Amino acid sequence: MTEPHWDPFNRDCPTRRLLDRIGDRWTVLVIGALAEGPLRFGELARRVDGVSQKMLTQTLRGLERDGLVDRTLYPQVPPRVEYELTHAGRTLREPLGALDAWARTHMSGVIAAREEYDRAV
Amino acid sequence: MTEPHWDPFNRDCPTRRLLDRIGDRWTVLVIGALAEGPLRFGELARRVDGVSQKMLTQTLRGLERDGLVDRTLYPQVPPRVEYELTHAGRTLREPLGALDAWARTHMSGVIAAREEYDRAV
Repeated sequence: MTEPHWDPFNRDCPTRRLLDRIGDRWTVLVIGALAEGPLRFGELARRVDGVSQKMLTQTLRGLERDGLVDRTLYPQVPPRVEYELTHAGRTLREPLGALDAWARTHMSGVIAAREEYDRAV
Repeated sequence: MTEPHWDPFNRDCPTRRLLDRIGDRWTVLVIGALAEGPLRFGELARRVDGVSQKMLTQTLRGLERDGLVDRTLYPQVPPRVEYELTHAGRTLREPLGALDAWARTHMSGVIAAREEYDRAV
């Protein structure tokens, strides 16, 4: 259900900041990694190669606050914490997967375009 | 055609930076505005409410360099400059449109989730 009063073309609409959040590279990769099932923090950190602990924590907390990721603490020794997509988070898999696929498909063309542009200026 | 050696899960892959570019709020809005046809700079600035001249210039130059937007100068008095999507740029309409639609559809749910999260912490 699209609510017609939300419109990122309006400067004050909160969908603009939401677009920043969901289009962020770390969000794309974290949602992509969790698309296949729940993961622990360390597993996520390995899958999203090169992400800092601070950035991963911040990304996960933001996604949790937005209701897109669930954090579950299993009280065992040592405690186990798992992250998984919520129902709303799962609806992001398709659009973000399309973005990921676009980047992979068009990277070579974009590099060629940049070289041509840089030769011309 | 997906080229298998591009993978944004690898820290050094340039697709990571490409994801930043295409997921950027201004890119989503500029591509969305140009999806309906060519526009002049001032028309774009009005459509993307609140974008600064500097940010719009920078976004358009980046998209032009990446081969996603064409800039055409019509040598008349005063000169007219129009921006339009290239073939590669048009392939972005669908994934970015899906992102825009996702944000509109889920904004209310995200706000509700944030309120619940903030009450709990």
